[in-house]
Amino acid sequence: MQKNDLMEKIISLSKRRGFIFPGSEIYGGLANSYDFGPLGVELKNNIKKLWWKMFVQEREDVVGLDANIIMNSKVWEASGHLENFNDTLIECKKCHTRHRREDLMSFWTVKYKIASTGRYEEIAEKFSKECSVCGSKNQLSDQRQFNLMFKTNLGPLEAQENIVYLRPETAQAIFVDFKQILETTRMKIPFGVAQIGKAFRNEITPGNFIFRTREFEQMEIEYFIKERGWKEQFEKWLSEMKKWIKAVGIDEKLVKYVNISDGERAHYSKRTVDVEFESPFGQKELYGLAYRTNFDLSAHQKLSGKDLEYRDPETGEKFIPHVIEPSLGVERTVLAVLLSCYEEIKGGRSTTTESVKEEEVVLRLPKALAPIKVAVLPLSRKEELSKPAKEIYHDLQKKFMCQYDETASIGKRYRRQDEIGTPFCVTVDFESVEDKKVTVRDRDSMKQERVAIKELAEYLQKQLE
Amino acid sequence: MQKNDLMEKIISLSKRRGFIFPGSEIYGGLANSYDFGPLGVELKNNIKKLWWKMFVQEREDVVGLDANIIMNSKVWEASGHLENFNDTLIECKKCHTRHRREDLMSFWTVKYKIASTGRYEEIAEKFSKECSVCGSKNQLSDQRQFNLMFKTNLGPLEAQENIVYLRPETAQAIFVDFKQILETTRMKIPFGVAQIGKAFRNEITPGNFIFRTREFEQMEIEYFIKERGWKEQFEKWLSEMKKWIKAVGIDEKLVKYVNISDGERAHYSKRTVDVEFESPFGQKELYGLAYRTNFDLSAHQKLSGKDLEYRDPETGEKFIPHVIEPSLGVERTVLAVLLSCYEEIKGGRSTTTESVKEEEVVLRLPKALAPIKVAVLPLSRKEELSKPAKEIYHDLQKKFMCQYDETASIGKRYRRQDEIGTPFCVTVDFESVEDKKVTVRDRDSMKQERVAIKELAEYLQKQLE
Repeated sequence: MQKNDLMEKIISLSKRRGFIFPGSEIYGGLANSYDFGPLGVELKNNIKKLWWKMFVQEREDVVGLDANIIMNSKVWEASGHLENFNDTLIECKKCHTRHRREDLMSFWTVKYKIASTGRYEEIAEKFSKECSVCGSKNQLSDQRQFNLMFKTNLGPLEAQENIVYLRPETAQAIFVDFKQILETTRMKIPFGVAQIGKAFRNEITPGNFIFRTREFEQMEIEYFIKERGWKEQFEKWLSEMKKWIKAVGIDEKLVKYVNISDGERAHYSKRTVDVEFESPFGQKELYGLAYRTNFDLSAHQKLSGKDLEYRDPETGEKFIPHVIEPSLGVERTVLAVLLSCYEEIKGGRSTTTESVKEEEVVLRLPKALAPIKVAVLPLSRKEELSKPAKEIYHDLQKKFMCQYDETASIGKRYRRQDEIGTPFCVTVDFESVEDKKVTVRDRDSMKQERVAIKELAEYLQKQLE
Repeated sequence: MQKNDLMEKIISLSKRRGFIFPGSEIYGGLANSYDFGPLGVELKNNIKKLWWKMFVQEREDVVGLDANIIMNSKVWEASGHLENFNDTLIECKKCHTRHRREDLMSFWTVKYKIASTGRYEEIAEKFSKECSVCGSKNQLSDQRQFNLMFKTNLGPLEAQENIVYLRPETAQAIFVDFKQILETTRMKIPFGVAQIGKAFRNEITPGNFIFRTREFEQMEIEYFIKERGWKEQFEKWLSEMKKWIKAVGIDEKLVKYVNISDGERAHYSKRTVDVEFESPFGQKELYGLAYRTNFDLSAHQKLSGKDLEYRDPETGEKFIPHVIEPSLGVERTVLAVLLSCYEEIKGGRSTTTESVKEEEVVLRLPKALAPIKVAVLPLSRKEELSKPAKEIYHDLQKKFMCQYDETASIGKRYRRQDEIGTPFCVTVDFESVEDKKVTVRDRDSMKQERVAIKELAEYLQKQLE
């Protein structure tokens, strides 16, 4: 399949089946924003649940946090976001487009086939400051800094002292609450704090569907360590990232681990590995793993005047902990999972005798991620079958997300479920009335098994674990 | 217990054990904002999960949605929020406090013991416009309207056309996405759409802990119906609200269902019932149930020019659906649950022979809500016990949120768990090494049962269902 075809197919499936659709669509949308529909919200929640299970529930050294999106503005002064979290933009005086410097650079270097080295000013001069949108020359403004935080106002008075920001990352809340978490739990270093929540960046988005949006959700851990031994801890977290990639169903062959070189890293980081994903629109940063030293806690200690040191209970030594930060985006996980799990089977693979479509789609989601776990399908709409089928459906609903479907042929109903990744279809047929058994069909192997109705819930629970 | 004492005890327990603590505390906090710590995030998530299970997973007529916080501003034009979602504020020219009109009214009527009827202007005149904060007279400004939506700017250009708002309620997204949901699912009226998410209101908060905060989370359903039969549907949802109150562990004796009279209801509503909770700070609105007619969908159809009608598949009739809206706040649920489940037992109720504290606290949370489901407690720190205890802990962690605790006496450890509502404590003693059994203690009955280690996970799973 062509790469762009794949993207189009994912977007079309997402819209058609209610995974993801444009936000505010009846009003013409809103700058690359997307809402998660009935299936999408389940998929997204299942990803968050799996992450929380792996990194909070199943670990004894990580606890959770859920802090506010709007925090005291001093937080962003300490973190450096107020000063440094900027995009360099250049405005075309003719068409008024505001360009990111990086976008102009890559426009010129690609169009005129030159190496992408050199300073912006030189390259801009060389190509007569050509606007990539309207093509006019020498109309580009000087570079200007735009802060990427969304700014708003707390309380009715619009005044400087009431300006607050929507957090551009969830991480800082963990540093700000570090001491309170330490005091209310009995965690000892090394330990981590995990948080899932929304963050906002007022940037110009390249428009690759949900991969990069202004409003997005993060899953972040700050793992507090002693400085000595940081390299080992970093390696451990790198291997945790690899475990996650596998568990969440992202195609490992499409993932690259890229060591960020000295000059490219954030100034406070001593090592950063970008987890990159080979998407149809290029190799893009999916996740980040950074050793942030003790930069953040030190900055907050300095600005707040509070003691943010940790006291080693054995040695009595006091120090500001260092941190390893695995940072994951939720929406880009959703997209990478969809791209990895989408499969088209030419000529179909129907298990019934009816004529097959040219191609069938199977979304091979990990079972834990599937929006619908079980579909209950009576072979006929006659009450003889629909009554016991409904009973089975209502019983299973207490345990899993289920769907009941009695419209269309059984082959078509299987395909509907395959396309959204439902791991199991339960078919109720006329024999079921006699032998009190149903047929359970596995999405991937297409194996069909007869299971006693009274053992069905437990059988499915085991299969889904 | 005195009512104010109870509030103080809940706040103190929340802070001490890491349920809820002040946000941005190291910077002096931020106007009545609170963060959910390691136990609080679990409690809050469990409430959301229970709601989703009851109202989405277990129902065939409700599907979920997760829309953006920032939507096209037209949404708020159609909904009427831009024009009408205002607080009337009055500024004291002397101390510069901005008062809500309602607060001044109740200040005067309480202080001067008069009935709270009459127009603001008359009453203000009567009491010489006395400021409730600085006491100065005749210094209050005229009434001014302040919109309660947080305003921000999308993109780098600060211009009128780029102004966007943080949603003041989650409900509108459901109306805006109504047609897309209809097209991507095969839902037939009556059906509902459920959403959980953050909302923001830039109001002056009365400061009752987490009961009313500017940033908060809502759980809302818009249930689409035909106009005919709305009364029956309303009654059904009222009884669903009662089921929820019971399931989530809110003391039913403290809940009042208040029919809002004609003059007090929002103009689009034909019936509203406020679910009020008798809190230590007065009887307050906990939830709302409103019949919103077809006001919202009609308004969006009108402004967007899109066809938002529903076509009845049987009769072919086309109409704009009416809605019943159960609206719930997450944070106020957390507080009502904590207030309802907190119990102090004078003289203690220890199951061990050691001397007891004067009072013991038991947080009688429904099992589904408990942040920690099982605590594993070896009777001694000797490796003979800690090794098998750790093994049990690691095994149980795969299924539930667990804690391992080997510090302090067993009585103290029981009390630590009772105080945070842990339903089960598993004690590993020297006999366990011989008979491969452990003691499971029930938080509420304090009954102790010997359970074989290899059956433990399944035993607990059954108890927790």
